Amino acid sequence: MTLSWKGLAGLFVLGAVIGPIGDHIHVVTGTTRYYDSWVPVIGDSPLWFPLVVGLATAALGAIRVRLAPVRPGLDVRHGIGVVAAVLVTYAFTGILNGTSIFALTVLIVGMAALTWAAFGDDPAIVCGVMAAVGGPAAEIIGTWTNLFDYADSSDGLLGVAPWLPALYFAFGVAAALLGELVAGRSAVSE
Amino acid sequence: MTLSWKGLAGLFVLGAVIGPIGDHIHVVTGTTRYYDSWVPVIGDSPLWFPLVVGLATAALGAIRVRLAPVRPGLDVRHGIGVVAAVLVTYAFTGILNGTSIFALTVLIVGMAALTWAAFGDDPAIVCGVMAAVGGPAAEIIGTWTNLFDYADSSDGLLGVAPWLPALYFAFGVAAALLGELVAGRSAVSE
Amino acid sequence: MTLSWKGLAGLFVLGAVIGPIGDHIHVVTGTTRYYDSWVPVIGDSPLWFPLVVGLATAALGAIRVRLAPVRPGLDVRHGIGVVAAVLVTYAFTGILNGTSIFALTVLIVGMAALTWAAFGDDPAIVCGVMAAVGGPAAEIIGTWTNLFDYADSSDGLLGVAPWLPALYFAFGVAAALLGELVAGRSAVSE
Repeated sequence: MTLSWKGLAGLFVLGAVIGPIGDHIHVVTGTTRYYDSWVPVIGDSPLWFPLVVGLATAALGAIRVRLAPVRPGLDVRHGIGVVAAVLVTYAFTGILNGTSIFALTVLIVGMAALTWAAFGDDPAIVCGVMAAVGGPAAEIIGTWTNLFDYADSSDGLLGVAPWLPALYFAFGVAAALLGELVAGRSAVSE
Repeated sequence: MTLSWKGLAGLFVLGAVIGPIGDHIHVVTGTTRYYDSWVPVIGDSPLWFPLVVGLATAALGAIRVRLAPVRPGLDVRHGIGVVAAVLVTYAFTGILNGTSIFALTVLIVGMAALTWAAFGDDPAIVCGVMAAVGGPAAEIIGTWTNLFDYADSSDGLLGVAPWLPALYFAFGVAAALLGELVAGRSAVSE
Repeated sequence: MTLSWKGLAGLFVLGAVIGPIGDHIHVVTGTTRYYDSWVPVIGDSPLWFPLVVGLATAALGAIRVRLAPVRPGLDVRHGIGVVAAVLVTYAFTGILNGTSIFALTVLIVGMAALTWAAFGDDPAIVCGVMAAVGGPAAEIIGTWTNLFDYADSSDGLLGVAPWLPALYFAFGVAAALLGELVAGRSAVSE
């Protein structure tokens, strides 16, 4: 199954709107810090941030619906639930920045696993792992190139936070489910 | 469907017993503070607090069962779960008082959304919104009349906490489900 | 139903591997502290810690499958979910050590109740209560005999933390479910 342009646009907008909420949490809690640049800023995020999150959401959603049939019985309730789970997890990474990084990483890995157990299926694991590898890899390059950096308390994974792969995994699970919802809403275009 | 007096009394007692636990959390964490008054105090709460929470629980439960048929398949497990979800959310508002209010508000909104996704239905949204509007409105008047106030870190919404509507929303969802449980237990009085 | 030796060994290994993660959280956050002894240490835990947690996991799992038939429809997703729920709860007890012990205890009791509501059944309550009584009782003796102690902020229950029974209850619920999973995987040996 492939997503319509309308469906992809919906996923892009969702990611582009919700992503900066999490980014703002990281900035106000001192978890991450952007370096000055010539790029226009929206809220606390440079313009590329919502674009990248929106594109990643649409791409992961499109990958999900290509991997396997959409689960029947999913509705907007599951979409709200999985987005809320990711935001709760995101909020913990910011609010609890500066506490034991080991304990915080266990907490975030646990939250990611719970998010999958509540909302994910097998193909969602593929999307979660792609996000968990690709996201932190891109961010590691971002810190090396001085776009931003992580607080000293949260930079133990090659410059990014040890909990970052788990947070991205939860994001990938959410994007997969949102892809299913969007596919289920647009006609029967199997 | 209407609730029996016994059912309403059960909801009142539940609210009146559990509410002060949350209130005590807010007082001991310095999230809220009561001004001295002539009203007798139970624990940390003035006598009117458990009465108001009990009445609100019974009223929202009664409204829920008037709005739509009770869901089949609900049992005490769901009642325990939804009450626990509200207490967990309540505890976060107190324990994390003084951290970033933006991040904390996102956390509490996320917890409220998860609580609905796990336990609510459409009519529960009506009860949640009524609580989310009425509760903070009443509390804003309470701060204006110097009954109590919120900590400086948590008074950004006309004197009350920005996360307060979300906490009340979760409470409304819980009261709605408890109303369903109570209605389901008392005879078949459709 | 009885568990095979292979099943019991699996439960033992799970408990022995995951338990020390939680123990490490408590040590690095200063929630608990071991006194020096002649016992070899693995990570932060004396050698007996993983052994005791592994044995308790296997024993509770074996008790569960003797109490009642295994629920159909359980799979590895539920196992991952319930273990994650316990680790999240464990992480909160460590990260939030030193905040209001009343609020933290409400949080942990709420998390334990949610864990049961999401993953438990009636026999899991029996396992949960056995763990909630036996675990803290053993730990109280452990503090009296100077094997370890709890931080001043978390020693209000005869020397151990007031939230400890709730954390053990969640552990008991998890061990019960893992017992069911292990029993379901090994042949049809009713």
